[in-house]
Amino acid sequence: MPIAASVKEIMNNKGSSVIRKMFEEGIALKAKYGEDNVFDFSLGNPDMAPPKEVYQAVQEVAKDENPSRHGYMPNAGYMETREAMAAKINKEQNLQGEGKLCGKNIVMTVGAAGGLTCICKAIISPGDELIVPTPFFAEYRHYCGHFGGKLVPVKSKKDFSIDVEGIKKALSEKTAAVLINSPNNPSGKIYSEEEIRELAKVLKEHGEKCGRKPYLICDEPYRAITYDGKKVASAFPLYNESMVVTSFAKNLSLPGERIGFVAVNPKAEDADELVAAIIFANRTLGYVNSPAFFQKVVAKCWDAKVDYSTYQNRCKMITKVVANAGIEFVQPEGAFYLFCKAPLPQKEENKKYILKNDDGEYCDEFAFCDHMKKYNVLCAPGSGFGCPGYYRMAFCVSEKTISGCEESLKKAKETW
Amino acid sequence: MPIAASVKEIMNNKGSSVIRKMFEEGIALKAKYGEDNVFDFSLGNPDMAPPKEVYQAVQEVAKDENPSRHGYMPNAGYMETREAMAAKINKEQNLQGEGKLCGKNIVMTVGAAGGLTCICKAIISPGDELIVPTPFFAEYRHYCGHFGGKLVPVKSKKDFSIDVEGIKKALSEKTAAVLINSPNNPSGKIYSEEEIRELAKVLKEHGEKCGRKPYLICDEPYRAITYDGKKVASAFPLYNESMVVTSFAKNLSLPGERIGFVAVNPKAEDADELVAAIIFANRTLGYVNSPAFFQKVVAKCWDAKVDYSTYQNRCKMITKVVANAGIEFVQPEGAFYLFCKAPLPQKEENKKYILKNDDGEYCDEFAFCDHMKKYNVLCAPGSGFGCPGYYRMAFCVSEKTISGCEESLKKAKETW
Repeated sequence: MPIAASVKEIMNNKGSSVIRKMFEEGIALKAKYGEDNVFDFSLGNPDMAPPKEVYQAVQEVAKDENPSRHGYMPNAGYMETREAMAAKINKEQNLQGEGKLCGKNIVMTVGAAGGLTCICKAIISPGDELIVPTPFFAEYRHYCGHFGGKLVPVKSKKDFSIDVEGIKKALSEKTAAVLINSPNNPSGKIYSEEEIRELAKVLKEHGEKCGRKPYLICDEPYRAITYDGKKVASAFPLYNESMVVTSFAKNLSLPGERIGFVAVNPKAEDADELVAAIIFANRTLGYVNSPAFFQKVVAKCWDAKVDYSTYQNRCKMITKVVANAGIEFVQPEGAFYLFCKAPLPQKEENKKYILKNDDGEYCDEFAFCDHMKKYNVLCAPGSGFGCPGYYRMAFCVSEKTISGCEESLKKAKETW
Repeated sequence: MPIAASVKEIMNNKGSSVIRKMFEEGIALKAKYGEDNVFDFSLGNPDMAPPKEVYQAVQEVAKDENPSRHGYMPNAGYMETREAMAAKINKEQNLQGEGKLCGKNIVMTVGAAGGLTCICKAIISPGDELIVPTPFFAEYRHYCGHFGGKLVPVKSKKDFSIDVEGIKKALSEKTAAVLINSPNNPSGKIYSEEEIRELAKVLKEHGEKCGRKPYLICDEPYRAITYDGKKVASAFPLYNESMVVTSFAKNLSLPGERIGFVAVNPKAEDADELVAAIIFANRTLGYVNSPAFFQKVVAKCWDAKVDYSTYQNRCKMITKVVANAGIEFVQPEGAFYLFCKAPLPQKEENKKYILKNDDGEYCDEFAFCDHMKKYNVLCAPGSGFGCPGYYRMAFCVSEKTISGCEESLKKAKETW
């Protein structure tokens, strides 16, 4: 057995790597049919250029010929950058007084994904559980699974808001944390302040009763991207044992640069020890530190913004296109994903793809996604996100791709 | 228990994080006594500026305003960069014909440390073993430990060459790989082609007998830094089941940028599956991809070099300084580390630090390193590298630091 058995098993699991596989299939299809004839909604890879402040900052850092510019720094990152990130969080979460963060509450990481992996290493012992409301970002399974943790999905309400009662039932002494992602990938849902408050109350009560306080991890890379004036609730004032993990992948369009951070609520019990454990994980997992160059860049331009109105327009366009094709979807409140219901097949030969669960009949979305591929439309199946029967369309793509896919989508629906 | 018990235990282990802790202590001491009065040999953080080709490449990439410049690419990296790295390995290992690598044998990673962690994830099942000759880079323990692997140190010969018979005895069906680091951190030893050939023979025989072929992992970030015309042997032509992992931390002085890669021998059985497993690990461990910007930079300037003659001069200086202080050491053949024997204490009150093992008496090097700190000399204890009684001096520091420490070192020795 050349590779580890567990890795082989996961690699062969069709749900696990289907999104990334599709990204590579998309590249191949575009090479074959031409960029304009492939409608690739498979990956959350922002197509918008970073804002001009990023380019200015990149130029400035590029000119800095200090010999140590590209050297090691403390594993948590440059203190100047950590202070800037603390200011960002204080502003976003409207923190004041003793609740305010400073640089020592921040660990710079290799993107939000690297931050989440470090958090998992820091808090999860084998057999521990990480609770997530559905739908959830597919990779969470791996981040906790690497360290013997188990992802425990809790089904959300019909409108994809958090089922706090459901989470309460799932809590146990094995619960290391509850992980929420708002705006949500893939549903576009923003959890309300009321939901977070209720969730915090349940977590507090559980912690007092069982002696182990679950952390609340808020994965917020899409915080700045919201529609119709919606605001993302702040967890820090509502629950002490909380962390925010985020990146500059979406709001500064820098996903490939792997720049992100973890912010630990200074009011958390043993906050300093938790930070130390995350830094330890950052070092020993081989990240060592967040890339030096972009730490300097984001310290200069963290408050810049890509033009979110573009995403708002695209959101309007894609909901119209998908509605015109007669496909149901969840109205996005933020992020840049449209979560669609795979339609039940009408053609006799496809009826084998009608499946059943407690909520009734639904369509095998892997089959429908394969069917859409015939029309050069690439979407991500929902099973990986814990929602079979749904699929995700990432609309961080050009307007031309969105409007161009309408006919293909209609045909896919008609021939299904 | 807010953080995982295993993490807490390792964080409290004095050997495990002593080097990094010392790096941060060094920063504090310098703030207190002034940069010139602290002799910090604790960390392998190159002080030499990157070569001019790097600055030129950084400027060029900084000017590239292609909107996708900072976006995601396939998890293995840009194909253009992977092809460049294949060319680098073909040149270094003098590969020809069907043994030659191409881009698909390369995975770009977050430094060599990220590459090693991905390899461990890809090939280690819980209970598997990773054999390393002593001394070894202290972090190897973590890279395999995260996935339930066990590091099995095999004592090297007195001159720190590989004890191939010792490795033969340590091999079992649990052996996932043998990991060698040449030039070695911390001993500066270069393993000869003859040693690698013998090792390869033993690994082949074991693989045929037991049915599981152990990988040979060559960690080579110091390959280009050698003294007196010494050459680093190439493993690929000698053993099919081999990998090279390396970075641009040392030869281009870019450790903070976290840019490295894994090269898989195309002759390895299931080479493509192994590459796929490493890419899977790269994605799911939250690295996602090697930082985009520096992938573009190193594709342009991988063949540039910092001025290695500077390291050669420093090597001459430090060996003289340490010899003058009456301290024994291993003559470095490459890299920028001097591995010294902690002297047996002469003062009555320090005799409690004399310890014993199979080779006879030796000095508790933690105590001697603490003692040197009183004279503002910072060195890394050898226990973390699997060699109690030794300590490491990293000489990637200024000539002034090297010559300046002579008096302090003498005093430390005299008062011991």
